[in-house]
Amino acid sequence: MNKKEISTKPLPGFMELTPQNQKAFDNIKDKIQTTFEKFGFVSIDTPTIERAEVLLAKAGGETEKQIYQFKKGDKDVALRFDLTIPLARYVVENFKKLSFPFRRYQIAKVYRGEKSQKGRYREFYQCDIDIVGDEKLSLINDAEIPSVIYSIFKELNFGSFVIKINNRKLINGLLSDLNLSDKSVEILRIIDKLDKVGKEKVMEMLKEISIDETSIEKIFNFLEINGSNEYVLTELKNLSVGDNDFQNGIDELEEVINNVKLFNVPDDYIKIDLSIARGLDYYTGTVYETVLTDYPEIGSVCSGGRYDDLAQKYSDRKFPGVGISIGLTRLFSQLKDAGLVEEESPTNSKVLIISMVDDLKIPLKVANTLRQNSIATEIYFEEGKVAKKMKYADKIAVPFVILIGEDEINSNEVTVKNMETGEQEKVSVDDVVNYFS
Amino acid sequence: MNKKEISTKPLPGFMELTPQNQKAFDNIKDKIQTTFEKFGFVSIDTPTIERAEVLLAKAGGETEKQIYQFKKGDKDVALRFDLTIPLARYVVENFKKLSFPFRRYQIAKVYRGEKSQKGRYREFYQCDIDIVGDEKLSLINDAEIPSVIYSIFKELNFGSFVIKINNRKLINGLLSDLNLSDKSVEILRIIDKLDKVGKEKVMEMLKEISIDETSIEKIFNFLEINGSNEYVLTELKNLSVGDNDFQNGIDELEEVINNVKLFNVPDDYIKIDLSIARGLDYYTGTVYETVLTDYPEIGSVCSGGRYDDLAQKYSDRKFPGVGISIGLTRLFSQLKDAGLVEEESPTNSKVLIISMVDDLKIPLKVANTLRQNSIATEIYFEEGKVAKKMKYADKIAVPFVILIGEDEINSNEVTVKNMETGEQEKVSVDDVVNYFS
Repeated sequence: MNKKEISTKPLPGFMELTPQNQKAFDNIKDKIQTTFEKFGFVSIDTPTIERAEVLLAKAGGETEKQIYQFKKGDKDVALRFDLTIPLARYVVENFKKLSFPFRRYQIAKVYRGEKSQKGRYREFYQCDIDIVGDEKLSLINDAEIPSVIYSIFKELNFGSFVIKINNRKLINGLLSDLNLSDKSVEILRIIDKLDKVGKEKVMEMLKEISIDETSIEKIFNFLEINGSNEYVLTELKNLSVGDNDFQNGIDELEEVINNVKLFNVPDDYIKIDLSIARGLDYYTGTVYETVLTDYPEIGSVCSGGRYDDLAQKYSDRKFPGVGISIGLTRLFSQLKDAGLVEEESPTNSKVLIISMVDDLKIPLKVANTLRQNSIATEIYFEEGKVAKKMKYADKIAVPFVILIGEDEINSNEVTVKNMETGEQEKVSVDDVVNYFS
Repeated sequence: MNKKEISTKPLPGFMELTPQNQKAFDNIKDKIQTTFEKFGFVSIDTPTIERAEVLLAKAGGETEKQIYQFKKGDKDVALRFDLTIPLARYVVENFKKLSFPFRRYQIAKVYRGEKSQKGRYREFYQCDIDIVGDEKLSLINDAEIPSVIYSIFKELNFGSFVIKINNRKLINGLLSDLNLSDKSVEILRIIDKLDKVGKEKVMEMLKEISIDETSIEKIFNFLEINGSNEYVLTELKNLSVGDNDFQNGIDELEEVINNVKLFNVPDDYIKIDLSIARGLDYYTGTVYETVLTDYPEIGSVCSGGRYDDLAQKYSDRKFPGVGISIGLTRLFSQLKDAGLVEEESPTNSKVLIISMVDDLKIPLKVANTLRQNSIATEIYFEEGKVAKKMKYADKIAVPFVILIGEDEINSNEVTVKNMETGEQEKVSVDDVVNYFS
C-alpha cells in the first residue's frame, strides 16, 4: 500500500489533542475527579464493550441507530453509549459486594455514531456520579448533587453559572390531571424543544398531536411560571392541580430547594426552571441542568436527575438513584472555541538538564537526585550546539534549565536558568534539590 | 425480554473489578503514571477506534485474526490492539506541533480477541512510554529506559526483579554471518520459544526448517553464553563473528550496560540475556524484558525495545525510538493470584458523618467545612438506627466516623470515632477541620 493512501487523521468525530491541549484537557478532568472523590464517590471501570442486548434493553430508537454494534465470533456486542446502563448492570452483578447507598463515579469514553458535525463527537468522555440506593434512597441526596455541581464549576472557574432544577412529577401530574398521560412521552419531547423552536412552534406541534386549546393553555400557564424560587413554589401551589403526583412534585421540589442551601450553595446559583424536561424518559423526580451564564449557547454542561429504578431491565430488586453527567469532550471543545481554555506547556518536567560535556556522570547525578526527590526532570541527550538545545527548552516551555559545562564541572556547580525571568545563578551540585524544594 | 435472559456478567475476557479491587488497581496505575511524569513524559490520548487500514498496515497474521474490526457507515474501522501504532500515526499527523525527542506516555485500554483463557484478556490496559526522535535518537536513551522500569518496580514493591537486556543486532548479525538472513524471522520465532519448550525441541524445530547442524551449534554457542554482564560481553567478543551488525550489537550493548549504571540502577537489577528475541519484528536494537524474581511464571512484566523507524508505513520521514509497555490488566490479575495485591477500603472518604438528629444544619455545616478543606467526606442520610449506620461505616472501612446527636448539638460538639483504634473523643464543631489536618 502506498504511504500516501493511508490517512493519519483521526476518524471524523474523534477528538485527538496536541500535548499542549491534552494537558489543558487533563487538568479539567483531574479537577472533576478530585471533586468527585472529595464528596466520597468511588471509581469503577466497566468494559467499553458490552453484550448488545444489555445496552439495547433500555435504549430508544435514536440510540439504536447510533450505537456501534458488531459481531465478534458468535457474540453480538456493542460499545457503550453512556455510563448509566453499564452502572445498572454492574450494580446487579456486584450487588452483594457493594455497600448502599453506593456512591460511584466513572470518567470514561462512550460512543455514539451521530452525524458528524461541529461540536458533536462520536467518541467522548462522560464524567458521571450516581448515588444508588437498595430499594430506597432519601430525598436529601437530591440536594447534595447540586453541591457537587457547584464545587466543580466553582473550581473550574469558567465564570458564573446556574443550576436549574425541576421535578418530573409536576408535568406528569399536570398531564394526568388533564387526562393526557397516554401522550406524555410525545408531549415531553415537544416541550423539550421549547428553548430551540420557541412557544409558537411548540403550540403548533401540540395541536398537531390533537391536544385541545384549553390543555395547551394550562400547560403554558405552568411552563411560564417564572421568578424567584419562592415565587415559583407559591404559584405552583396556587395552580391547585388536584393530582397527587403534582402535589408530591411540589413537596419534593420545595424540600430539595431548601436543603440545597444547607449544602452551602448560594441562592443565586439555584433556579427552579419548570421547562426542563430532560429527553431521557427514565427520570422520575428531580432533574438538573447547568448553564454557564455567559455562554448560554453551549447549552447544559451538566445534567441528570432522580430515577426510581435503575436496573428494572435486569433485576426485580429496585435500585432508586440520583446522578449527573458532564459531557467533557464537547464541553472542552466549546470552552476552547469560547477562549476559556488556554494551551498548557507541553511538558511535565520542571527541569531540563542540558550538558555541554561528554561525560554524563555529573548531569546524570543531578537528574537522579532530582527524580528521587519527585522533581520531574528530563535530560536533553541529543547532539548539537547549546542554541539548538535551548530552542528545545523554549519549545517545551520547561520552567527551569540546568546548564552543565566544563566550568561547572570544575567548580562542582550547575547553572540554573529560570526560563520565565531569564535569571541565571550558580548552584552547588549538592544543593540542587534544596533549590527546587 | 425476560429479565433472567439478560446476563449481567461482563463478556468473557473483560476484567471488571469490585470497588475494593478497583482501588488497588488504580493505585498501581497511579504509581506508574506518576513515575512516567517524574521522568518528563507527557500524556496523549488517541481514539480507541481507528481506520482499519491504519492498524493493519503494520500488523502480522496473528494480529489480523485477533483484531476487533467492523463496518460503521461506509468506514472500515477497528479497535486499537496496541498503543504503538496509534503513536506512529499521531507523530506523523502532529509532527509540526511536537518537540523532538518526543517523550510521550499513554495509559489506555487495547483490544485483542484472543482465545478466552485464564490470565488472557480481550480488553486490557497498556502503560506505554516511548522516546521518539526526528531522524535520529541518541543511544543514551536506551540506557534511560531501564531506569524508568527500575523506578516503577521499586515503587510498586512486588519484591526483587531483573531487567533483562539484549540487542537484536547480535542475533541478526550472527545469522547473516551464517548466511541465514533469509530465514531470520522464522528462526527468531523458534528461539523465542526456548523458555517454554526447551533446547531439544528448539533444535528439532530448527532442523525442520533445514538449518544445518553446524549453524545450530553456533546459534546455541551464542544463546548459551551466560554469566556476569562483563563475562558475557567478553565472550561475545571472543566469538569473533565478522559481521558488522554483530560488532555494532556488542558495542551498543556494552554502552547501554555501562550507561545504565550512571542512572543509578544497581548492577544486580540488570542482566544481559542473549535469548531474548521479542516476538515483534519491528525492534532493531536494544530489547528489554523484566521478570519478577520470585514469580518467574508471570513472565515478562515490562517489555520493549529500540526501533529504527516507527512510522515507515505512514511517512518517508524517519522516526527512530525506544520504548516499553506494561500490560497492566494481566499483571494485576497475576499479582492478585500470587497474593501480592490486597483489596483496599471501598471508599475515598476519610470521614463519614452519622447524624441522630433530624435537623441537618450542624451535620451539613461540618460536612461543608471538611470538604472545603479537601477532606473527603460523606454523610449517611438514610433512615435507620445507629447500629445500621455504623454497619455501613464498617463495610466501607472509612477511617473516621463523626457522630452527631442531641447531646452534641447542645454542646456544639461532635464525637469523632477512630474506626481503627475504636477510640472516641469530643471535638468542638469549630475545631473539626484542625482535628483532621
